[in-house]
This record gives sequence, C-alpha cells and structure tokens, in this order.
Amino acid sequence: MKCVGVADTTFARVDMAKYVIEELERGLPGYKIVRHTVPGIKDLPGAAKRLLDMGCEAVITLGWVGPKDVDKLSYLAASVGLIMLQVLTGRIIIDVTVHEDEAEREEELAYIAEDRARKHARNLVKMLREGLQALTPWAGMGLRQGGPDAGPIRA
Amino acid sequence: MKCVGVADTTFARVDMAKYVIEELERGLPGYKIVRHTVPGIKDLPGAAKRLLDMGCEAVITLGWVGPKDVDKLSYLAASVGLIMLQVLTGRIIIDVTVHEDEAEREEELAYIAEDRARKHARNLVKMLREGLQALTPWAGMGLRQGGPDAGPIRA
Amino acid sequence: MKCVGVADTTFARVDMAKYVIEELERGLPGYKIVRHTVPGIKDLPGAAKRLLDMGCEAVITLGWVGPKDVDKLSYLAASVGLIMLQVLTGRIIIDVTVHEDEAEREEELAYIAEDRARKHARNLVKMLREGLQALTPWAGMGLRQGGPDAGPIRA
Amino acid sequence: MKCVGVADTTFARVDMAKYVIEELERGLPGYKIVRHTVPGIKDLPGAAKRLLDMGCEAVITLGWVGPKDVDKLSYLAASVGLIMLQVLTGRIIIDVTVHEDEAEREEELAYIAEDRARKHARNLVKMLREGLQALTPWAGMGLRQGGPDAGPIRA
Amino acid sequence: MKCVGVADTTFARVDMAKYVIEELERGLPGYKIVRHTVPGIKDLPGAAKRLLDMGCEAVITLGWVGPKDVDKLSYLAASVGLIMLQVLTGRIIIDVTVHEDEAEREEELAYIAEDRARKHARNLVKMLREGLQALTPWAGMGLRQGGPDAGPIRA
Repeated sequence: MKCVGVADTTFARVDMAKYVIEELERGLPGYKIVRHTVPGIKDLPGAAKRLLDMGCEAVITLGWVGPKDVDKLSYLAASVGLIMLQVLTGRIIIDVTVHEDEAEREEELAYIAEDRARKHARNLVKMLREGLQALTPWAGMGLRQGGPDAGPIRA
Repeated sequence: MKCVGVADTTFARVDMAKYVIEELERGLPGYKIVRHTVPGIKDLPGAAKRLLDMGCEAVITLGWVGPKDVDKLSYLAASVGLIMLQVLTGRIIIDVTVHEDEAEREEELAYIAEDRARKHARNLVKMLREGLQALTPWAGMGLRQGGPDAGPIRA
Repeated sequence: MKCVGVADTTFARVDMAKYVIEELERGLPGYKIVRHTVPGIKDLPGAAKRLLDMGCEAVITLGWVGPKDVDKLSYLAASVGLIMLQVLTGRIIIDVTVHEDEAEREEELAYIAEDRARKHARNLVKMLREGLQALTPWAGMGLRQGGPDAGPIRA
Repeated sequence: MKCVGVADTTFARVDMAKYVIEELERGLPGYKIVRHTVPGIKDLPGAAKRLLDMGCEAVITLGWVGPKDVDKLSYLAASVGLIMLQVLTGRIIIDVTVHEDEAEREEELAYIAEDRARKHARNLVKMLREGLQALTPWAGMGLRQGGPDAGPIRA
Repeated sequence: MKCVGVADTTFARVDMAKYVIEELERGLPGYKIVRHTVPGIKDLPGAAKRLLDMGCEAVITLGWVGPKDVDKLSYLAASVGLIMLQVLTGRIIIDVTVHEDEAEREEELAYIAEDRARKHARNLVKMLREGLQALTPWAGMGLRQGGPDAGPIRA
C-alpha cells in the first residue's frame, strides 16, 4: 500500500497535522498516512528520513520556529537538512514552516498555520496524483500559503 | 532523445519558464524540454534531482525570493542544495533567482525576471551546444543577467 | 545489548550528562549507556558518528554555546552536522543545546541546562520505547525544554 | 597527460584566468590546462566537479562576488560547495575570490584580482610540484593574496 | 606506524603547528606526525581529508580567521566542511581556530594562539591514548582554550 509521511513537532503551538491529515485522507484515499512526532524543527530531517526508509513515497514536515535570532539559525540548519534529503533521494518533501514572529496575535498565527498546512497538503496531493506538471497551471502566479496570494505581476 | 529540465515555482510572480522554454526550443531543437513546477524555492533542489533522474542532461531552475530576512535564509538553503546536487552529479544546473526587493516597481521586477531568465537560458544553450569553453569569450567581462552588464575593468 | 550514546563537552559549564544518564538508566533499563566527551560543540557531530558506528541505536548530544556572534556560527555549523548525520543514517539524535546568553544569572542557566537535558532525555526514552508516535499526544502543544511550556494556541 | 583545471566566470570584471594560466604554464610545463567558464560564483563548484571528472588533478576557481548582502550569501553557498567537493574527493581546489566591495576604485580592484590570482596560482604550482609540505616554510607567516602580507606576529 | 595529521595555513600569523607538534611528539611517541600546509582556512577540510586518506588516524587543523564579516562566512564554510568530514568518516578532527579580532594587541593574539594550540593538542593526545571517555573527567567543567577556564556553574 502506498504511504505518505507526516512529520510534526511538540514545539509547535498549533496541531497542524490534524489539518494535513484531513486533506491527505480526502485527496489520497489509496494511501496509508504515517505520522511521526519529534521534539523540534531540527529533528524534522531525521524524521523525514525515517519515514522515507519505511517506504513512504513523500513526506510533509510541519515546523514551528521561535522568534529569536538563534531560532532562525536552527531554521536554516533544518532547511539545509530537508533539502539535502531531497537531493539525495529525489523524493518530494513538502516543508511547512510557521515563524512565531509572523503575526502578533495568536489567532492570526493559528490562522496562518491552518491555511499554510492545508494549502501545502493540497499541493502534495496534486503532485502525487498528477506528477511533475501538477502545479504548472499556477507557475508564476504568486501563490502564497498562510495568507492571500500575492498574484502575478502583469508586465 | 536528449532532455533538458526546467524547474519553476508557484511562489514566483512572473512566469519565467515561458521565456526560458522559448529560448531553449529555439537554441536546442534536438532536445525534449521537461517542466516541473513546485511550490517554492526550497523545493527546487529536489525538483532538479527528479529531472536529472529522469535523464535530463541539465536543468535550469527559476526561483523567486521574498524580501524578508527569513526569505534570505531560505535562499541560502536552496542555493546550498542546488550546489550540492551539482557537486554530487557534475551536471549543469543554471540557477535563475529573482529577489522581490531588487526593484521597487512591479514593472521593473517583471523586466528583471524576463531578462535574467532569457539570458541564463541562452547561457545554458551555449554550454550544452559548445561545451566547457562555450562562455570563455565572455570570461571576466562583467556580464549581468537582469540588467545591463557591469563590463570589464580596464586595468 | 542495545546501546544509547551520550555525547557531551568540556566547554559546557554544567554537567548535563549526569541528568541525562539518570533519566536514561531509569527509562531504558535494558540499554547500555556509552558516554563520549569532546572539547566543544563542533566536535559533537563526529562524536555522535563514532557512537553510532559502535552500535548505538540513538545518541543525545549536549552542547553549550558561547554568547558571541562567532559562537552562533559554530552553533549553526554543528547543527548542520548533526542534522546531516541524521539524514544519512536515519538514527535519532536528540540535540540539547544551551546558549550562554539565554539567562543573565548563573543559577538560571544551571536550571535551564538541567531542565532541558532531563526533558530531552525523557523524549528520547519515549521515542526508543514507543516508536514513531511516542510524542504524538503532545504534537502542537507548545512544549518547551529549559523552561515552562508555551502551550498550544487556542484557535 | 596530467591536467589542471581553471574555472572562471562571466560575472567577474577581470579576466583572472589569463594571469592564472600564465603562471600555470610557467610552473607546470608537463600539465595540460583545461579552462571552463560558467556564469557566476554559484556555478563554480559544479564546474570544478566536471573538471575533476575529466581527470584534472587539481582545480583553481576564480570567483567574483557582488557588494550586496545577498551576494555574500551566494559566496557562502559557493564556498560550502567547493569545500564539500574537496571533502568528498581529497583533491586540491584553490579558491580565488574577489569581493567587489574590497576596494573603492576600479584600478585597485584590478590590482587585487591580478595579485590574488597570480599568488594563488603559484601556491597551486608549489603544491602540485612539491606535495604536502610545499607551503610549510611559509606556515604562520601571515601571507596575503591581493595585497601586502600581514606578516607573522613576533611573540 | 600510526599517524596523526597537522594541517595549518600560510594565512595564520602565528606558527601554531610548532606548539602542536611539540605536544604531539611528547604525548604520542609511537606516532608519525604528518604536516600539511595550505593557503587559508577554506583549504583546511581538503587538507584534513588528504591526511586521513594517507592513513592518519586523526587530524588537528590550525585556522586563522580575519576580522571582516566575509571572513566569518569563510569560517562558517570551513567549519561545515570539517564537520562534514567527521560525519562521513567518524575520525577525530580537532579544530583550532584563532579569530584576529579576539584581541587588540598582537602579543595577546600570540598568547591565545599558543595556549589554544597546545591545549587542543593535549586534548587530542588524551583522546587518542585513552578513548571515548578520555575527557569525561572535565565534562561540564567550562574548560577554555586560548584563555582561562570559565569553570563550572555551581547550581
């Protein structure tokens, strides 16, 4: 049975996996969904590797980054790790990250987290169902996850 | 049949692939062009890897980077990934990146994006047709993509 | 016999391994605990690699980072290394890091170090005993190590 | 026939390869010199990989970095790539980089570029002719390329 | 015959290898010491790789970093490379780095360089003679190289 992985953290302040799993179950009925929870963002590349090694075709990671300078360095290290894993395996790893300083009010952060998680889960569904050109109709369209689209520039 | 890959994003606000494909079709008539669209810049190294694994001889990636500090970290992580892929494979991966804060007016950004995409596509055409020294006549000439050339310094 | 590794440093100003080993012995009675001490944070990825090569199933690393800008770069390099090791092996490497500038008073730093070390050791115990979903009941709950939990955002 | 590679860019504003090739021809008469020109600094690690794959024993890369913050990130990514290639292969890759903001006047930049390129080419010649200790007589002597030596500190 | 490598640079302004070799000869009488000098800090990971490939069991690298922002980026790239080499090989690579802006007066810099080099060489001697727990008696003791120890925090 085909499998897709969901890696999330206990550091996050929103249960983004709930939204992601809802979207994946709706969009990928033939797939088994395997969830793996780790402490924080720097543990996500290892979690994704374990999910790929279990046979998952793709993984979606759900990171939450604190507001301090040093948190941004952790974000950078985690991002390099997730990209390195893709470079080594060629598998699709969709990286959803919310930065705690993206919004001032908690409700807004919760909105960003849900919107970004759902939209990226739908991106992953499309890519797994339709292949390399699944997102091509929206190429250059200024799509955003976690808020309204920026839209294309009309030259 | 020989193949060249074009990886672009839905985050970008200009459809740079349109210009790139136009240049590649004109310059590499014997090649199949395979396009692969992903959400954002951090997905480009994985996309390039998939295109190489499909048999593409080279890839051109079309990234668009937001204006915030954290966007610059994503740019750095993506750049490390694209370079790592080249170091591991030796394949040519031409990286076209537009930073949203390169210009203030949208028309200017659109101009930069088209100019940079076309010029780099022509660089790739030359490199694939003529090999290691294809660009040597312009070595040290201060060429720029996305604006006028800086030109060589006359010592 | 199963084995878990503990890598720590002489640079650190708190003997965090003491707390970690206490927690591991309590939580993983069937495991041998192998400790490996190195000079500083940049030596931790190599130490973790040696512990994995000796047969350890997982490693917990205990880093201490100075307050200067250049110390933060060392933190970044060490983090990339620990993540790279996870990406290459899929093994669990729990990274406990204390930054000397997290608190002004020494007693507070000591408290942070013990709390973070113990909580992460318990995370590792749970992950080794219960597997991929061991921490899932706390996913998105805003857990923190080294201080009180931030808690989940109520949307 | 033994071979040494020279990788340069069209972004650079000085034809540093001219000076490098002059030095290499003088110092390594038994070697074939293979030049490979790429668009910019981020393409140099891939170029160096291709030159090594062609059989070159060592490579000298000639990078030129713009003055903006984002250019410095590109410099970092390129540096990581060149170092990664050395870590994977053990081959000597001498990295000559000029930063456009090292000097205010163009003539000074041209001087830095020539001086740095020639001196590093001579370093490479020495290393290839005399091996691991070729530069040991100058160890700790505060040599600089692109300007006067800093000299050793007299303790 | 067992071998330990010493990699240093012509950029450094103090001949740190002199002190290191003195310590290694005293502490590791059964070992052959192989020195390898390269131009600067970014060449150290490649130098260390060559020394390991020659059969050295461990390497000590002696880096000197300039005071500019861009020098710090070179430090970061070099650190990532040295760590990557350890992650790939599991070998001990002790990294001694002096930053030119650590002290204002040259005599102080010379003192830092010698102290740091000697102490780290002794660390390496201990690790090679006594194995994984050689430094454990000093774990968490706040040891410093290049100046007085910070000492442990008394909780």
